[in-house]
Amino acid sequence: MSELSRRHFLTATAAAAAGSTLPLSAPALAAAPPAPNQVPSAYRYKVGDIEVTVISDGIRTFPLADNFVRNQPRDAVNAALKAGYLPENQVTVNFNVHLINTAGKLVVIDTGNGPAQGTVGLTQGTLASVGIDPKSVDAVVISHFHGDHINGLVNAQGTPTYPNAQVLVPEAEWAFWMDEGNMSRAPEAMKGAFQNVRRVFKPFEGKVEKYGWDKEVVPGLTSVATVGHTPGHTSYNLTSGNGKLFIQSDVTNIPVLFMRNPGWHAVYDMDAAKAEETRRKVYDMVSAERMLVAGFHFPFPAAAYVEKDGANYRYVPINWSPVL
Amino acid sequence: MSELSRRHFLTATAAAAAGSTLPLSAPALAAAPPAPNQVPSAYRYKVGDIEVTVISDGIRTFPLADNFVRNQPRDAVNAALKAGYLPENQVTVNFNVHLINTAGKLVVIDTGNGPAQGTVGLTQGTLASVGIDPKSVDAVVISHFHGDHINGLVNAQGTPTYPNAQVLVPEAEWAFWMDEGNMSRAPEAMKGAFQNVRRVFKPFEGKVEKYGWDKEVVPGLTSVATVGHTPGHTSYNLTSGNGKLFIQSDVTNIPVLFMRNPGWHAVYDMDAAKAEETRRKVYDMVSAERMLVAGFHFPFPAAAYVEKDGANYRYVPINWSPVL
Repeated sequence: MSELSRRHFLTATAAAAAGSTLPLSAPALAAAPPAPNQVPSAYRYKVGDIEVTVISDGIRTFPLADNFVRNQPRDAVNAALKAGYLPENQVTVNFNVHLINTAGKLVVIDTGNGPAQGTVGLTQGTLASVGIDPKSVDAVVISHFHGDHINGLVNAQGTPTYPNAQVLVPEAEWAFWMDEGNMSRAPEAMKGAFQNVRRVFKPFEGKVEKYGWDKEVVPGLTSVATVGHTPGHTSYNLTSGNGKLFIQSDVTNIPVLFMRNPGWHAVYDMDAAKAEETRRKVYDMVSAERMLVAGFHFPFPAAAYVEKDGANYRYVPINWSPVL
Repeated sequence: MSELSRRHFLTATAAAAAGSTLPLSAPALAAAPPAPNQVPSAYRYKVGDIEVTVISDGIRTFPLADNFVRNQPRDAVNAALKAGYLPENQVTVNFNVHLINTAGKLVVIDTGNGPAQGTVGLTQGTLASVGIDPKSVDAVVISHFHGDHINGLVNAQGTPTYPNAQVLVPEAEWAFWMDEGNMSRAPEAMKGAFQNVRRVFKPFEGKVEKYGWDKEVVPGLTSVATVGHTPGHTSYNLTSGNGKLFIQSDVTNIPVLFMRNPGWHAVYDMDAAKAEETRRKVYDMVSAERMLVAGFHFPFPAAAYVEKDGANYRYVPINWSPVL
């Protein structure tokens, strides 16, 4: 056959199934069992002299709720999922922990969902697979106080996961969540989040360092206010030499929904209008600068360029390099 | 700061550098050395009941030659590289070996560049890291006879890399490259490729199985003629249950050049016009069917959807899943 026709293409398998399979004449080996697990999901890249290691903490997949995108009908969300080659009526949220090795210090940025349970909490297993001992971590920098970012600060015994690390948090985030008045006024559904913040930070009482915005929190990592998702939500500029990375934290969640459609409001954004304003400003800037962006909820390895497309944006993942 | 302005964003790091760095008060640990290497680049996914393991054999990076795209001026190629967020005046070619576990058989599809040298030949090291013994491989299926696809059939000692594997090759490819007349008539620059084919297949003399097109070469894997890149160039439909994958081999090389611009002719295509015709047919089909495509030269993990965009196509990588 020298012609490749569409009809041919679609029927070739059926033809083959009708009996033309070549016999495998190799010696019979024991049947190879399929591998039971995914490989550990870690990836390294450089920003100037700073080494970044991305660790997937896992994924959560759940049915699409009608209010998942607050200001869009279900059909529009399904159409966007389909356009992004994702299954309809279902949502998968990715979680990615970032480590940076900067000036001889090992720094974790956001900690993931905590102890392993099902498809999340994979961080400690993957850190072990790449030979990183949690005792060697010097600092943990937290972007905001949602559970998927802070729960990994403590292990199943409720003691610090990174026992030698200083914990640094945005002062505006601390002020909001630790305020007893804010907790008492919060809707019932949000009270758990306030209580979780108190549970997680309990072992660090009196030892948490609060940082403001526009500060170099650790060498090369500067805090940037990106509020809306939470009242103290923080992103970072990571710079070294000519290398630049914008670590966005939760400026957006699933890219094919909320980067492709920056006006869509995710149920997770506490001030949705402010979050949208922040999102458009950030993406206008990083697209104009052609700056690489790391996203906690981007698909692993969670680094991408942002291409402006009219009033919207397109997610362009970096090319994986098999060598450092 | 509650306002995020562009000016702010660009000057924040400079401000921080002026002296507002927080002191790290954690106990002084030994400085953490940066990791010397990338993590092994392996990834698994399922096509129905068949497990696919992608292994990066590495990358080659070299200066952009004027004839790299035969029918385009250098400026156009640089513009496309830039549009794809890749460095100008430089080309990076990716190599990916695919393994499938089908009906209890472990099958390698194309073998990579052979013994490790610099940034290529990473396959054996990565196979070891995921616990796959080359002795457990039952079959090696070859798509065409370019060195980056066949050289991994033999190790540095010139003996078979996969000692228990049957070797299956396209009969049209075998006929072309093994023909002494074709070798004698070949331009001087191509004679090495003919000699390399003879070197690689020498240890398998009389034991190579030749397959035609539209054949189920191993369970679930059906050969499809996609000639142009070479005279016997072959792609595959992999099917299991509702799962489908089109393994394109070298229907195109670097996606941001030759998928985004299917009319561009890579220096590697032996019959460029025929290769373009094949490329457009294949991408019209897989885009219409929304079929996942695996590409030997795609960026790792080398699986993507193809989105039709006028007369061109857009490369949409799959979302990495940290769980199988």
